[in-house]
Amino acid sequence: MKKESKDNTPFYLGIDGGGSKCKAVIVDVSGKVLGTGISGPANPLHGYEQAINSIVDSAKQALLDAALPIQKISQLVAGVGLAGVNLPSLFNMMAQWQHPFANMYLTTDLHIACLGAHNGNDGAIVIAGTGSCGYSRIKGSTNIVGAHGFPQGDKGSGAWLGLQAVKRVLLSLDGFEQTSQMNNIMLQQLNCRNALELVEAVAKQPASFFARQAFVVFQAARNKDPLALDIIRDGAHYISNVTRRLLLDQPPAISLIGGLASKLTDWLDQDVRLSLRPPEQLPEIGAVIYAKQKTKNKK
Amino acid sequence: MKKESKDNTPFYLGIDGGGSKCKAVIVDVSGKVLGTGISGPANPLHGYEQAINSIVDSAKQALLDAALPIQKISQLVAGVGLAGVNLPSLFNMMAQWQHPFANMYLTTDLHIACLGAHNGNDGAIVIAGTGSCGYSRIKGSTNIVGAHGFPQGDKGSGAWLGLQAVKRVLLSLDGFEQTSQMNNIMLQQLNCRNALELVEAVAKQPASFFARQAFVVFQAARNKDPLALDIIRDGAHYISNVTRRLLLDQPPAISLIGGLASKLTDWLDQDVRLSLRPPEQLPEIGAVIYAKQKTKNKK
Repeated sequence: MKKESKDNTPFYLGIDGGGSKCKAVIVDVSGKVLGTGISGPANPLHGYEQAINSIVDSAKQALLDAALPIQKISQLVAGVGLAGVNLPSLFNMMAQWQHPFANMYLTTDLHIACLGAHNGNDGAIVIAGTGSCGYSRIKGSTNIVGAHGFPQGDKGSGAWLGLQAVKRVLLSLDGFEQTSQMNNIMLQQLNCRNALELVEAVAKQPASFFARQAFVVFQAARNKDPLALDIIRDGAHYISNVTRRLLLDQPPAISLIGGLASKLTDWLDQDVRLSLRPPEQLPEIGAVIYAKQKTKNKK
Repeated sequence: MKKESKDNTPFYLGIDGGGSKCKAVIVDVSGKVLGTGISGPANPLHGYEQAINSIVDSAKQALLDAALPIQKISQLVAGVGLAGVNLPSLFNMMAQWQHPFANMYLTTDLHIACLGAHNGNDGAIVIAGTGSCGYSRIKGSTNIVGAHGFPQGDKGSGAWLGLQAVKRVLLSLDGFEQTSQMNNIMLQQLNCRNALELVEAVAKQPASFFARQAFVVFQAARNKDPLALDIIRDGAHYISNVTRRLLLDQPPAISLIGGLASKLTDWLDQDVRLSLRPPEQLPEIGAVIYAKQKTKNKK
């Protein structure tokens, strides 16, 4: 279903859709970035309608930013990397979407992040953002480590760090753990006077809420708070182990990416830290690279 | 708004509404149980409409069971104990419900459980069901320990045990924890072939789902599985501590109640185990006791 009109050079749209936000970039054939956009959550696990709305919204914003007409959306060749679509049922659901683009090449957020980090080349990435996991792609074969989701997994991620903080603050306020600097930081941040109000403030909150509480742990750790140090060390230990696991695949390069990458790096084991290389491109550019690779393969 | 018709002796309705189910009992003025009913979740935190529907459904079932006409619902004096209403916002929401009963006396599920366990007398309870917490009521003053909710708290509860199991099975299947007997029990139970299918099966599941996985831990622990033993000991340690905390209030009696009570008792510290007394009545009877106390106070 190629909707692309023949008289126009196509633009590429790169989408990086995660549990907290969706980022879009529009790039011309030469690779020049024309515009970017950002919108809400785009993990279809948390809602199909929300995911497709976020993708379209961010694309429209990027068109606006690029000073291109909205109608141009039907000429975009889209590379779309989404969280959640590693689950086959969600991949199939999204693949059947009657999208407004000329073409859509769908893959996981992990794949585009890896393509971005290594500028289209083979390699591995460890992601520590709202969630966490490891991913490598070498000679066409893929390895995923972790990606267990919230609240049952994603150790070392923002949501995991925030959940541990909430957990231990509640126990501490009840006197089952020692007093922690996290207690007051968190109560203040969430505008709560006591444990009961904190219970109410955190009830039924999504992973993104807990990820926003991760800063509490880092702030308290800076002042050597033992509970906060314990949480960070536990999380960083897991991230170190995930990295080591990926290194067994002997990737040409490995990068730590995601919102917590810079904060976590110092806490990783030295051998792991030394193995890491800064990412070359953003995940949304990785999505463009993916679309270009797929278009090329089609020819 | 007394809807009770003057020419009829009232019946009492006792409601115990929790996160997994709602139990109803109808009792006559002499205290004789006429009928019982059971329906779905009734914690308003998980949905107001669902909560009120579950309450009404279970009440209608109890009327049916008692061979009383459904219209009799408007003559019932209802004692309603609900999970979630310890949060003031939810208490107020439920208190404003235009209920179909003659009168409704609303309180927490903890309060009615305690009234039931000690047949209307002062005392303390430790609940280990889908969630966990401690509660005491002595000379009109109340103490709540825990009740932090899922997934951030409720240690030692079914949901907590199940979540720990899922967490560790996923890490074990990824090779980050030793192999556990829980791995195969859980994969089989959830009809999954591997970690990826397990990730999909547990994604976005509520506390009640995780509570149903708690049996995996007990089953593996029976065969001395180290990971399962570790989880149970950690949970039981917390329940022991909650009990000890309540004993500081010197309650006339203390009971461990809830779906996991019988399974957890053996794992509690001996001093704690010896302090426990079996509950006298069910929580829904405690709700009737509450309604009777309130009616009496009104006279």
